[in-house]
Amino acid sequence: MKKIRIAIAGLGTVGKGVYDILKKDKKILSERSGYEFEVTAVSARSKKDFIDPQIKFYKNPLDIANDTNVDIVVELMGGYDVAKELLEKTLKNNKKFVTANKALLAEHGFEIAKIVEEYNGVIGYEASTAGANPIIKSFKEGFVANEINEIYAILNGTCNFILTKMKNENQSYEQALNDAKKMGYAEADPRFDVEGIDTAHKIVILSAIANSSKPDYKNTYIQGISSITIDDINLANQLGYKIKLLAIYKNFDSKKIQQSVYPALLKASEKIAQIDGSYNAILSKGSNFEWNMMIGRGAGGLTTGSAVVADIVDVAKERNNTFLFNIESANFKDMKIINIDERIGKYFVIINFAKNLVKNTSEIFEFFPKTLRITQATFNDGDSDHIKCALITETYEESKILDIIEEINAKFALNTKFIRIEEINF
Amino acid sequence: MKKIRIAIAGLGTVGKGVYDILKKDKKILSERSGYEFEVTAVSARSKKDFIDPQIKFYKNPLDIANDTNVDIVVELMGGYDVAKELLEKTLKNNKKFVTANKALLAEHGFEIAKIVEEYNGVIGYEASTAGANPIIKSFKEGFVANEINEIYAILNGTCNFILTKMKNENQSYEQALNDAKKMGYAEADPRFDVEGIDTAHKIVILSAIANSSKPDYKNTYIQGISSITIDDINLANQLGYKIKLLAIYKNFDSKKIQQSVYPALLKASEKIAQIDGSYNAILSKGSNFEWNMMIGRGAGGLTTGSAVVADIVDVAKERNNTFLFNIESANFKDMKIINIDERIGKYFVIINFAKNLVKNTSEIFEFFPKTLRITQATFNDGDSDHIKCALITETYEESKILDIIEEINAKFALNTKFIRIEEINF
Repeated sequence: MKKIRIAIAGLGTVGKGVYDILKKDKKILSERSGYEFEVTAVSARSKKDFIDPQIKFYKNPLDIANDTNVDIVVELMGGYDVAKELLEKTLKNNKKFVTANKALLAEHGFEIAKIVEEYNGVIGYEASTAGANPIIKSFKEGFVANEINEIYAILNGTCNFILTKMKNENQSYEQALNDAKKMGYAEADPRFDVEGIDTAHKIVILSAIANSSKPDYKNTYIQGISSITIDDINLANQLGYKIKLLAIYKNFDSKKIQQSVYPALLKASEKIAQIDGSYNAILSKGSNFEWNMMIGRGAGGLTTGSAVVADIVDVAKERNNTFLFNIESANFKDMKIINIDERIGKYFVIINFAKNLVKNTSEIFEFFPKTLRITQATFNDGDSDHIKCALITETYEESKILDIIEEINAKFALNTKFIRIEEINF
Repeated sequence: MKKIRIAIAGLGTVGKGVYDILKKDKKILSERSGYEFEVTAVSARSKKDFIDPQIKFYKNPLDIANDTNVDIVVELMGGYDVAKELLEKTLKNNKKFVTANKALLAEHGFEIAKIVEEYNGVIGYEASTAGANPIIKSFKEGFVANEINEIYAILNGTCNFILTKMKNENQSYEQALNDAKKMGYAEADPRFDVEGIDTAHKIVILSAIANSSKPDYKNTYIQGISSITIDDINLANQLGYKIKLLAIYKNFDSKKIQQSVYPALLKASEKIAQIDGSYNAILSKGSNFEWNMMIGRGAGGLTTGSAVVADIVDVAKERNNTFLFNIESANFKDMKIINIDERIGKYFVIINFAKNLVKNTSEIFEFFPKTLRITQATFNDGDSDHIKCALITETYEESKILDIIEEINAKFALNTKFIRIEEINF
């Protein structure tokens, strides 16, 4: 049986997961692929106890690309420059490449697509997005006969865990974040996750495939969850909504798209609103397949490792012979991402004021002639009672909502905020 | 650009969908695959108006396999003998084969696997199971690094539509079935769907991949939905459950499996219990990926056509170079399907009696010492009041439940029935 020699660069949680799967599931992988997979080299900042000491260790990951005893390089280091150099060297030396590096693909995807084409390279990146969900393969292969016109996705387990914890246990954002850290769901520095950057990288990749266009991270609107309070969640709940950090892609007319990340209100009855805890979900709408939703773990050693190993098998069999983002980079479509203030939709507006300052709340509501429902709650914060009114508007262009809020805040000296509402009806 | 010449055998709903997609989506298919796809031959019982008259028409589908102007044969006729002969002739003549024929694969899969291996054939069958959900590709490729140990699936849109209609509109089974017929969700002769045979074909295919074993239709336990009454649904609802026709696969110890189709009670909070209408859903548990669920349309011209065209692209690119059921047929595992009376689980027991005949219902309940919850309802059917008691048992082996029911029926001259309960907790 032909032996395929694997090098793993980066031995964190996922690196260990890949190593473990290649060892414990050797037999089924051989039976199913016709190949024997063997790890022959690794690279990491320091040597790891769980790696067989017979396996060649490299301090510098770039050296792996020159190792004649390696067929496939698996890049799980993250980061930009070294990872990109490793990719290029690997393909140049006629080896195959598997990566989970969403940041690299989202921010330098066009360059990478050209490198892959230049060397006629074979590359897999299933594990970059939504962990164990085979969503890259589905978008590129299973749904090949579709324009994908809408995507709504929960792509960050940390944020979903925090929002679920806040709602179910009535915790503050800070409490829930701390619990997430304790349970290993959040990093010591959680900004990458909670500010929506990780989610943005993933939707940029999915959009590029859906669009057959250059990944455009720069123009993606990104808002994280750190400004969401337990009051927002409870007020939304009173109106029958849940708050989720959503990645959103909408293709309006094959020229203009929305591509953004923000916390959104979803009716509690929407299926994607029910995806709680650290799970990911991707709901997409295709021109022929209609709606499809995939739900699964977004992170974890064996779960994400399972996606990396699937890529290893695919590239070993040279099955992954599609273009990086669905079509040749020279033919990429020219898509314009709309400014977020051009968004048209409903809004959840939260108005916060001291009871003794505003006599007649209807004066405020008059500013929103297109209002559907209103709820309010009183919060006693020591000196004075504060009232929070929350209302669900009818459809507005976002720039109009911004104008109204500016006016209210000026007139009543308030601090009004809004959260966008998504109506999917799936 | 290289031209790939397609023949479509069978021009029903899906055949038309495939034809339409290959025509309207020609451009994106070329951009993504590097091939130009063109339908050069068709076969059907009679000529169809929607087919370009320039395209070669065959009355006998087997003649397609000899047409030197055809690269890929798409079999959408259904049935066994002619379809199998067409498959063999196609591979023998060095053409590729795509099929949506679940009955053929489920009932003659072992033979087909050997034929495919004999000719080193390239064959795709994504559209055989769960329509637009890329579940075959996911099981074979995306989840290649996993033993799949559990599957719970809603695989028949007709049954799911009928059960949803009964529950949401308080309709009888007959009413809902008639509506399904009117709306085109059910055939004039609906037995294939409502008796669970279609669902069984699909779970047999998924189990064979999960198991790497011979598809075993013969030993699959199959019970359809025609015995489910609106009273069953309402009583289950009172206890917080929904009834779904579930395909179930459980691998107990890599030797013994459960493989069956039956209506099952699911807690209303289970995600799969919320898949209503004509949608399909497949929930699976892998040794590394943990839980994954896919939801999408299970039938329809363009939706299923989308899966067929994905296979056409895959086989054109010779990407589908895996074994038919994951491993070589000579190495198929030897799995034993348990008898359904060995099933261990909870049961929903419905006891139906005339009010004036049973004085003390506790006499009946004593037969079920392990009872969790009881509900009852009175139904007035003219002459006398009938009472239906429904109870949720604790865990029993099914043979024990059968014994108890036999005893009760004998002692009180009753007609007691049960529905199995599945507890998935996803």
